[in-house]
Amino acid sequence: MSIQESTQKDRYQPLISVVWEEDSLKLLDQRLLPENIIMRKLVTPEEVWEAIHAMVVRGAPAIGIAAAYGVVLGAKRYAGADKLEWLQHIHKVCAYLATSRPTAVNLFWALDRMKEKASRLAASEDGIAGFPDALLAEAASIQAEDEDVCRRIGEHALPLFSDGMGVLTHCNAGGLATAKYGTATAPMYLAHEKGMKLKVFADETRPVLQGARLTAFELQQAGIDVTLLCDNMAGMVMSKGWVQAVIVGTDRVAANGDVANKIGTYSLAVLAKAHGIPFYVACPLSTIDLNTESGDLIPIEERPEHEITEGFGKRTAPNGIKVYNPAFDVTPNEYVTAIITEKGIVRAPYREHLAALFR
Amino acid sequence: MSIQESTQKDRYQPLISVVWEEDSLKLLDQRLLPENIIMRKLVTPEEVWEAIHAMVVRGAPAIGIAAAYGVVLGAKRYAGADKLEWLQHIHKVCAYLATSRPTAVNLFWALDRMKEKASRLAASEDGIAGFPDALLAEAASIQAEDEDVCRRIGEHALPLFSDGMGVLTHCNAGGLATAKYGTATAPMYLAHEKGMKLKVFADETRPVLQGARLTAFELQQAGIDVTLLCDNMAGMVMSKGWVQAVIVGTDRVAANGDVANKIGTYSLAVLAKAHGIPFYVACPLSTIDLNTESGDLIPIEERPEHEITEGFGKRTAPNGIKVYNPAFDVTPNEYVTAIITEKGIVRAPYREHLAALFR
Repeated sequence: MSIQESTQKDRYQPLISVVWEEDSLKLLDQRLLPENIIMRKLVTPEEVWEAIHAMVVRGAPAIGIAAAYGVVLGAKRYAGADKLEWLQHIHKVCAYLATSRPTAVNLFWALDRMKEKASRLAASEDGIAGFPDALLAEAASIQAEDEDVCRRIGEHALPLFSDGMGVLTHCNAGGLATAKYGTATAPMYLAHEKGMKLKVFADETRPVLQGARLTAFELQQAGIDVTLLCDNMAGMVMSKGWVQAVIVGTDRVAANGDVANKIGTYSLAVLAKAHGIPFYVACPLSTIDLNTESGDLIPIEERPEHEITEGFGKRTAPNGIKVYNPAFDVTPNEYVTAIITEKGIVRAPYREHLAALFR
Repeated sequence: MSIQESTQKDRYQPLISVVWEEDSLKLLDQRLLPENIIMRKLVTPEEVWEAIHAMVVRGAPAIGIAAAYGVVLGAKRYAGADKLEWLQHIHKVCAYLATSRPTAVNLFWALDRMKEKASRLAASEDGIAGFPDALLAEAASIQAEDEDVCRRIGEHALPLFSDGMGVLTHCNAGGLATAKYGTATAPMYLAHEKGMKLKVFADETRPVLQGARLTAFELQQAGIDVTLLCDNMAGMVMSKGWVQAVIVGTDRVAANGDVANKIGTYSLAVLAKAHGIPFYVACPLSTIDLNTESGDLIPIEERPEHEITEGFGKRTAPNGIKVYNPAFDVTPNEYVTAIITEKGIVRAPYREHLAALFR
């Protein structure tokens, strides 16, 4: 993985987090934001695996897009002429990339789509020489569709918001997490385009501070009114009547509407309910996993202790202290007011209404 | 304020945060824990004001004790022989020290007690030469009584806990915040003395991380089972059934039982209620302010932005970002299961039962 100074540095907006350029994948290193805007150039699937695992790239849709390009990089390794062998090779690359983050269903979704494309290619009359370009086109489609999907999520969400409203969000389900617009942030960007003023509160989102480093950053860049909070201030801000809606993204929605998202989301949902504030989840259909019956079946990744004990260049906890660091939590469907997708707004009963989206 | 390497460094426990020694006040610099154990030597009221303001010393009882010794340091400035002038001087010192932190009622309580003592001295037949020692004895009494009070809080609280129980706490209402034992931690220390095993969860408590740096540290030092969490993990840990009680300290309890405490306490109280978990507040009577009718009359200190934007030794938020950083929140009395004082356990209706404590 080589470091390259970004040419984006002086541009106002938007920062694009995943770029295919000159036969390589370039990822905006989101761990270094907002201080440093660095694009990392990746040329192997191993580098892509590591970048996903280490959260150089994060956000479910962006992870899926990066993984799709990772498959393209992996395809280049095959120098033979046997289509079946090629297909097996692609499957191996996909299986490998799937292990980089266990929770993000978009990762599996994007890899499945690349496998399906590979399988169609292998079964076709086309010459194997054109396969890498065809896979690249598929990855580029995933990216282009994501931008379109996010915009449509924003359009469906917009009527839920009105001028002057206070909106609280957690983690980063923003443009940086997707091809563009983000999911939870899509209505904020669209409102901004239309001159509707929202007052956004961004939880800093410990331990990795995606809210402080990414959400506050990208909304500020876009000129949207945003105030940064520590996670534990959300309840107080709600009790003051400053928040009329909570909106978050998600890493996976189960068939019953349970929502896995960044740790802290569940607390927010409980607080929103206690204050009579609607709790919205914005996501593409690719994040909805009808194969997972309910949230308790979603594996919760536990991350390294040092994220909590020495996350920012300085130790902030005693040596040898026991730490619990789950990356996600699951919000049961009864706390979810609505799920906003590119096909429209879904409300309870979720099992029935989510399934209907796919028919 | 001069820095002095602590002689406490190699001792196992307990760390004492406020020490009077050689005609000066020594404060354990709690901002530097757990990495550095440094005692700061203070010789003027201005240094005490600054130390309270900058949170070298924190925790309502410890602030009160430090301020009382600050009055002793201030008394030394008076070189005259006029008792009335001396009393006016003491009042000025007290008024000045009272401005160091606006929320901590123990600060005012301790200063009032010192003023009362000064007034008794001025009205007495005693010679003015002995006044400084008499004030010092009063400050030392405040400290000794605090240790006794904390121990009694622990004894009253202990029956609320049982072997194997999970207990969550926020910020540091520990031995470091008081003369010894702490308030919220008193039952933990007493349980430990009696061989009762509690499983403590300590919120790290953004932005200043008193939970990570102080509570986790002092409980670990004492050999108590403690697990460090980010604040936003509390809800998930409750939903897993790992917590059977929440116990926190407080900076001020209003006459109606509303509780001002470190930001994030209110969110915890709402979460505890939603999970059917009792929410306890441990405090000395000196923290209960019958003159404040209800929590909405308690001034909430807002603290500097940099605590949120660059608290970890590195900037973690974009330049120029708007920040909201309240130091405290108020938990309405309906969320408070019981208030545990040195005179016993108080439950709702609080207005009646708190008033009864003082009769």
